[in-house]
Amino acid sequence: MSGNTHNDLYIVGVGPGDPELMTVKAMRLLTDADTLVVPKGRENGESTALNIVKSLVPIEDKEIVEIYFPMHKIYKNGTTSDEVTLAWKQAATTILEKMSSGKVVFPTLGDPSLYSTGFYVHATLLEIHPDIQIKIIPGITAMANCSAATATPLCLGGELLSVVPATFNDERLAQVLETFDTIVLMKVYRVMDRIVGLLERLGLLGSAVLVEKSGQPDERIFTDMRQAAREDLHYFSTIIVRKEKMVNRQ
Amino acid sequence: MSGNTHNDLYIVGVGPGDPELMTVKAMRLLTDADTLVVPKGRENGESTALNIVKSLVPIEDKEIVEIYFPMHKIYKNGTTSDEVTLAWKQAATTILEKMSSGKVVFPTLGDPSLYSTGFYVHATLLEIHPDIQIKIIPGITAMANCSAATATPLCLGGELLSVVPATFNDERLAQVLETFDTIVLMKVYRVMDRIVGLLERLGLLGSAVLVEKSGQPDERIFTDMRQAAREDLHYFSTIIVRKEKMVNRQ
Repeated sequence: MSGNTHNDLYIVGVGPGDPELMTVKAMRLLTDADTLVVPKGRENGESTALNIVKSLVPIEDKEIVEIYFPMHKIYKNGTTSDEVTLAWKQAATTILEKMSSGKVVFPTLGDPSLYSTGFYVHATLLEIHPDIQIKIIPGITAMANCSAATATPLCLGGELLSVVPATFNDERLAQVLETFDTIVLMKVYRVMDRIVGLLERLGLLGSAVLVEKSGQPDERIFTDMRQAAREDLHYFSTIIVRKEKMVNRQ
Repeated sequence: MSGNTHNDLYIVGVGPGDPELMTVKAMRLLTDADTLVVPKGRENGESTALNIVKSLVPIEDKEIVEIYFPMHKIYKNGTTSDEVTLAWKQAATTILEKMSSGKVVFPTLGDPSLYSTGFYVHATLLEIHPDIQIKIIPGITAMANCSAATATPLCLGGELLSVVPATFNDERLAQVLETFDTIVLMKVYRVMDRIVGLLERLGLLGSAVLVEKSGQPDERIFTDMRQAAREDLHYFSTIIVRKEKMVNRQ
């Protein structure tokens, strides 16, 4: 194809779970869309994005295209297998086809900027077809929702925030936990025993709060990390460690 | 007053500037509100929050209460002067009065979790009246909008993100810049010369993008930090430093 005869693609953050946390812009773009491209995968929970959309946007007249994106092998140079590369190129080709005939929106859980499939889709599409226009619409992050739900500020005044996957090694995690005011630990669900041990060693067990499925109807909040570690936590679990309790309490 | 005869207070993030980046929930609460409490201050730009609200929510029938909150002296134990404490208590008393007679919303720019006045208001009110209910509604952050506008992911895969006020000393900033994958530098507008020097020394000038007034009609994006440093930048300026350019580019 010569020239660009494609409509724009919108990669739209739909927030952490509560449909009312979609933005007005997300609602407008989703309502106007002819096609919704929805990633499907095992544990990435991305079908949650479609459930959020469906709660407030009628989708009966829209085409829903579910695409399997193999995860976890895409990033960092040189680690992508031919099989994964091929799957992504096929996915991109499907999206490009839809973009040539209608308005396409790619809804993604939370905010595209944080650990979302959206930017991989973005890169893959532009690699195949550099002339297309892709617009990214920010969404409410799970961590902002955790902060709101637990009344735990992430940053005040001159404080420093760090967002870290809990899957990092203890030494690196300890260094971050020691040197920042607030630390958001992502992907904690399979490593809770390690995290509890680490927080205990650093004297931070009392400074942590865990939110599971933030913004979703079955959201749970734990202030006792040992109790949380005994639960079968969902993949969507986030810990906020905040050292300074609150402010201007005289 | 004995018992709690107050309505709930909602501290509502209204996003970085584009009114369409308000959430459906923010729109509902703002529309239902009898009173909007709006902080006013010199450079904190908080009246921007009311401008965002006004763009989409009719406010003619609402009471608008502008309150001056003295900033920058409230946090960290022991540094609050009597004058500041008194001003905050007066502000809190005014808000409590409004809460006893109607629905009160406190709109705040961006997201309450990140460097917002909202949490100080929260703490001050609960100190005076521990029985009231205060609900925090998350909003779109300026950094999420900067990420979207520049197609710069904040975190992919196993990456680490840090959010740091650029007013920190060079040594601390350098340490953060060296050890994280993505660094969001807040409050850069008065320290651009220092930041440019630091980024140059660390070989990161080419990895930085600056967004001024993200999401507002007069938003500007700079990829040349030296050029940005020559401009009279607005307070609402954020730099994203991302080391890894993109992913799965074979």
